Amino acid sequence: MSDTTDIHTGVTECIMNMAEEARELYLDKQVPVISAPVSPLRFYREHVASNKPVVVEGALQHWPALKLWEESYFRKKIGDVNVSVTVTPNGYADAVTDGKFVMPDERKMTMSKFLDELDAPKKDKVFYIQKQNSNLTEEFSSIISDVDTDIDWGTEAFGQPPDAVNFWMGDGRAVTSMHRDHYENLYCVVRGWKTFILIPPTDLAYVPYEIYQSASYRENDQGGFEIVDDEETGKVPWVAIDPESPDLDRYPQYGHARPLKVTVHAGQMLYLPSLWFHHVSQSHGCIAVNYWYDMQFDIKYNYYKFLENVANTVSSSST
Amino acid sequence: MSDTTDIHTGVTECIMNMAEEARELYLDKQVPVISAPVSPLRFYREHVASNKPVVVEGALQHWPALKLWEESYFRKKIGDVNVSVTVTPNGYADAVTDGKFVMPDERKMTMSKFLDELDAPKKDKVFYIQKQNSNLTEEFSSIISDVDTDIDWGTEAFGQPPDAVNFWMGDGRAVTSMHRDHYENLYCVVRGWKTFILIPPTDLAYVPYEIYQSASYRENDQGGFEIVDDEETGKVPWVAIDPESPDLDRYPQYGHARPLKVTVHAGQMLYLPSLWFHHVSQSHGCIAVNYWYDMQFDIKYNYYKFLENVANTVSSSST
Repeated sequence: MSDTTDIHTGVTECIMNMAEEARELYLDKQVPVISAPVSPLRFYREHVASNKPVVVEGALQHWPALKLWEESYFRKKIGDVNVSVTVTPNGYADAVTDGKFVMPDERKMTMSKFLDELDAPKKDKVFYIQKQNSNLTEEFSSIISDVDTDIDWGTEAFGQPPDAVNFWMGDGRAVTSMHRDHYENLYCVVRGWKTFILIPPTDLAYVPYEIYQSASYRENDQGGFEIVDDEETGKVPWVAIDPESPDLDRYPQYGHARPLKVTVHAGQMLYLPSLWFHHVSQSHGCIAVNYWYDMQFDIKYNYYKFLENVANTVSSSST
Repeated sequence: MSDTTDIHTGVTECIMNMAEEARELYLDKQVPVISAPVSPLRFYREHVASNKPVVVEGALQHWPALKLWEESYFRKKIGDVNVSVTVTPNGYADAVTDGKFVMPDERKMTMSKFLDELDAPKKDKVFYIQKQNSNLTEEFSSIISDVDTDIDWGTEAFGQPPDAVNFWMGDGRAVTSMHRDHYENLYCVVRGWKTFILIPPTDLAYVPYEIYQSASYRENDQGGFEIVDDEETGKVPWVAIDPESPDLDRYPQYGHARPLKVTVHAGQMLYLPSLWFHHVSQSHGCIAVNYWYDMQFDIKYNYYKFLENVANTVSSSST
């Protein structure tokens, strides 16, 4: 065996042993469920510091939204408000389609028009309110008092208020493709359900990335969609597998990943830790509000970047 | 450049970039000082989760020990108590001497006899009470009410009481050689001062280890010391440099480490995070009490072991 093979094999084994040891030492086999009230310190110590997802029961029961947020209420309260909506032919926004990273068509429409589309879904046309620029405070300000503007114990735990609060509502065909965020995420389902497929950051070497030309859907005169390259953005890296039907012939390493699947129902909240890969699907008309809190760029992030750099070094030396 | 050199260089660069990025992202240039009262959540978030040392002022001011613990008090209260003492010819217990890892001579003597030795220190004979088996509760139980049996905000932060509480008192020549512990350490100085040289775990690749024959000091009939091999323990790995006079010709990599130096005075406490390398020296007659809390074997530890394994793989492939 050559020295190259030696060190390549040695470092690859370090990566695989670490991912395995994560499961032996501290990762849960299923996402656990805890009940409110939540102690900020305990939440921080047991979930944030250790970067482990958890479902919280009973933390939203005082929200008027849990009872109020129905179609008739929205039509009455915010029917005329212009909201930002994404449209795709297949439900996949910010996802790999035909070998490109395709972003949705974004448009403004009244909330009533959006609700009409949800009521009578068209083939090849999937609508989703998913603008992540704190749209709850920007576009849905007249219903903001139906929820909390922050999660009090979360704000205490993280030591600061949320950076953004987002409103989500959409078609049951809408899917968020696998990715990871540099945020701590408190994700609250108000109506319906969301299913998350979660992969821990310690499995990152098993999650393949490719470089894709970025593009966007654009509706044509016939009401169909074309994919138009976004020359300005150029090429971007994105996760190359769909965890619902992974191509293991092409990406055999993904076979080592150990995804967790969890369905979050109305009234429940998911703590989705920073840097976890996640893929999201939902019930038709599902409504959710999420709170993004800044993550700490501390020793955990430092080690994580190290793992990512080592994995990239090993993988580029083997091609 | 060959592939071997490529991957060896690449992974080595990952290690060095990580150590550098730790300093840019979150490490303090000097150990900061905070004042009691300490919020358990804030302490956990800003120091424990991020694995950063801090000196705490004013956390011990209610301890009777701060006023009581003097020679006359000890002679009166616990003069006849048999205590465990280590003895070395040079102050270096559990340290590398003459190419061996040499443990001290351990013996029992009355507290009065120990205080006599401190009063009139002999050349080539250094005494130190440093038994780390919760000796405060075991051997010094009659003075335990002069301090707290735990640090209340520490116990709340860590979510459990301390695993051990230790009493330390000794000669100004006594030195604790550089090592790291799998414990969170709240180290309280009651009289005199301790100086800590601290190196973060992210610098571990710069801290050289060697394998040494383990041995112990044994006093001979002439009152001198012999070094006797400990065949049962055999060979052990230990840190090969003395941070007070590092041999950079032999261990040039240590030149990249960035030690922090901090002196902790009577009434102050040092939070010494798990896995930080530390070397300790002290004033003559310095008295201290430390609380060892179990560390979490979580994602931080998982990543740390990964770094250690990668560093070992790279270093063994270059020899």
